[in-house]
Amino acid sequence: MNKFCNVFYAQSGGPTAVINATAAALIQAVNSSTELGTVFIGKNGIVGALNNELIDTSLESEQDIEQLKHTPGSAFGSCRYKLKDPAQDDSEYKRVLEVMQAHKIGYFFYNGGGDSQDTVHKVATYAKQYNYPIQCIGLPKTIDNDLPTTDCCPGFGSVAKYLAASISGTALDVCGMAATSTKVFILEVMGRHTGWLAASSALAKLGPTNAPHIILMPEIVFDLTSFLNKVKDTVEQEGYCIIVASEGIRNQRGKFLADSNEADAFGHKQLGGVAPILSNFIKQQLGIKTHWSVADYLQRSARYIASQTDLEHAIAIGTAAVEYALAKEHNVMLTINRSHSEQYEWDIGTTPLASVANIEKIMPPEFITEDGFNVTPACIDYLKPLINGQANQPYEDGLPKYVKLKNILSNKKGTKKLDNIT
Amino acid sequence: MNKFCNVFYAQSGGPTAVINATAAALIQAVNSSTELGTVFIGKNGIVGALNNELIDTSLESEQDIEQLKHTPGSAFGSCRYKLKDPAQDDSEYKRVLEVMQAHKIGYFFYNGGGDSQDTVHKVATYAKQYNYPIQCIGLPKTIDNDLPTTDCCPGFGSVAKYLAASISGTALDVCGMAATSTKVFILEVMGRHTGWLAASSALAKLGPTNAPHIILMPEIVFDLTSFLNKVKDTVEQEGYCIIVASEGIRNQRGKFLADSNEADAFGHKQLGGVAPILSNFIKQQLGIKTHWSVADYLQRSARYIASQTDLEHAIAIGTAAVEYALAKEHNVMLTINRSHSEQYEWDIGTTPLASVANIEKIMPPEFITEDGFNVTPACIDYLKPLINGQANQPYEDGLPKYVKLKNILSNKKGTKKLDNIT
Repeated sequence: MNKFCNVFYAQSGGPTAVINATAAALIQAVNSSTELGTVFIGKNGIVGALNNELIDTSLESEQDIEQLKHTPGSAFGSCRYKLKDPAQDDSEYKRVLEVMQAHKIGYFFYNGGGDSQDTVHKVATYAKQYNYPIQCIGLPKTIDNDLPTTDCCPGFGSVAKYLAASISGTALDVCGMAATSTKVFILEVMGRHTGWLAASSALAKLGPTNAPHIILMPEIVFDLTSFLNKVKDTVEQEGYCIIVASEGIRNQRGKFLADSNEADAFGHKQLGGVAPILSNFIKQQLGIKTHWSVADYLQRSARYIASQTDLEHAIAIGTAAVEYALAKEHNVMLTINRSHSEQYEWDIGTTPLASVANIEKIMPPEFITEDGFNVTPACIDYLKPLINGQANQPYEDGLPKYVKLKNILSNKKGTKKLDNIT
Repeated sequence: MNKFCNVFYAQSGGPTAVINATAAALIQAVNSSTELGTVFIGKNGIVGALNNELIDTSLESEQDIEQLKHTPGSAFGSCRYKLKDPAQDDSEYKRVLEVMQAHKIGYFFYNGGGDSQDTVHKVATYAKQYNYPIQCIGLPKTIDNDLPTTDCCPGFGSVAKYLAASISGTALDVCGMAATSTKVFILEVMGRHTGWLAASSALAKLGPTNAPHIILMPEIVFDLTSFLNKVKDTVEQEGYCIIVASEGIRNQRGKFLADSNEADAFGHKQLGGVAPILSNFIKQQLGIKTHWSVADYLQRSARYIASQTDLEHAIAIGTAAVEYALAKEHNVMLTINRSHSEQYEWDIGTTPLASVANIEKIMPPEFITEDGFNVTPACIDYLKPLINGQANQPYEDGLPKYVKLKNILSNKKGTKKLDNIT
């Protein structure tokens, strides 16, 4: 083993149903390697590196690490924290590398979305300036599916499965009650800037109903009149209407609907949800009984209906991270590449971090129907393999069995000034 | 077979994840019987009887009927419709019996909650006046778990499992993010008058966290100050706080919180949800970042995480309905009876409809902690067996496989005036 044989890994941004599977696979791959030492994990993401609070994974049992593969959330803590621009203030980067040095860390893995890839990129650039010997690799993770270059993002497929299954069930529910009761159901889903999650609910069309009848995506400007007309027509034709709305839909002035004057014009102050606003429009303008739901964190923590394909992606990312690190890859993000064959086939590749940091992939126009209210068959073809297979989930006492780790911090507290590195 | 050998069955009120399993078991039991004829099902509940729209189940395949056991919703349509008081206007009862007569129906099964049991009771009473030879049996169904006499209600256990699993997952999610982001999560659940559903989320405590930390039930008057203190204390002690709120919580003046002046006093117009109102209280009064979710129909249509015990209850109710009918039981509701043994054991009994119609069972005081913010170990003991076991769920294309029936109406349209019955 060389001097800097230890590994740093941290989770960043919102948790997913499968991010811990990436962590588990990475830890297992490191532990199987003869060239690498201990995996230290940032408590609460990069904040753990700043605070010199690194979790020593060698103190966890093999069994608990394996159980991470079916435990949602961020098992080591995650964070919403963006490092300062090093051109303005490089103290945080210096601090991170000091902590890496104290723990003899030569491998830096950061597991997150676009912001996080930017963080890895900056750490890599900064380390190079100081000749600090560290390989930086970004691991993709985001339920939003908005990272560029990669075909999809680990975490997305499981939410897609949850949302499609939820719409499949609620459509039957509303369909059965519509004659004398609720005729419209609205499900609000995550997605502030992109409609991938809302779009994924369209997979419910593979089941016995035509729901969702309307999908509202941030890529399409929200127009109240055409929306209400679409709702009215759908109820007249189908007897009921199932709507999926991204939290981030905006009006013609580019304002989030949840903050828009339209909402105020109808006398309703925003309380943080698009679904109740849409519901009130429909009730007041069309006089139709509606129900609504806000999936929020439910959608990203429902490990019990995770996609096996998504889980396999997440595990493969963790394993491949170690393989690529040993192959001296540096300053890259791992990607999931889809082969263009009849059957769904994929493998793990890499892309320069500079090509992905801070770039959002929105829904392409060919995935959205002309009226802007639904997705095309091409979109369904893209989405379909991502929800395939039911990830195994052990149960205990009738509940999904999740593990909570010991998360013991490393006692290697003494850090030296980075300038002392030779 | 006697003259009135056919069977009427209908679903009433909100669907559940397992009500179609009751229907399937009943149809199968009738079809296995030599004494009974065809099962006709009211399209959209009792409304189908009023409109002479009866679905002829003999036109469905055996396979499709079997698949009902893993299909949520109300497969034949349900309704929110209360028959008029026969003392004021008996025309609807007359109409129902005319339609029964035209279809040679001698067995009337109605599957629903308290209102529905009242309907069966009234039909039974009315039929007796006219010497119409019909046996009336109420089948319990309600996610609210608020029917008296029966130990629990089919439909409840599966929502309980969904809510406990949801809280178990979201607790891990919030716990992992709380250091730098959201510290409070609120899940709004159904339950306008009783807290059974909110209480059931406490089963999440059997998992690795102590969530939910606060449960708000309609049985307890909502007090804003003590609520905010409890949230503050929990965040200080645990680092985060998971709250489950019944939609029906009320303030000291008995008003629904969603309609209360408290909400207006903080400048927020009600949009139909308790969760956003509570969220705003916490954000504004305590300055803590919150997220919230409204489960609404998601909770009752999530067949993919149904309780095996609940499914077995639902099936047993359908089977026992036919057995009790053949044993000449009449004017009763079926009940699930729990044996007081170490192991969970149960069987199906009956209770007079008069003892259950229009009566709501609220949470007993011994199930609620002294501070009113959680449930007792006795409550957990009661709830625990109801979520036991994972009901089998077939999948297709990565989605739960649900069936949609043909639902062909009987063509026996000619009804005679009831007075012609001899």
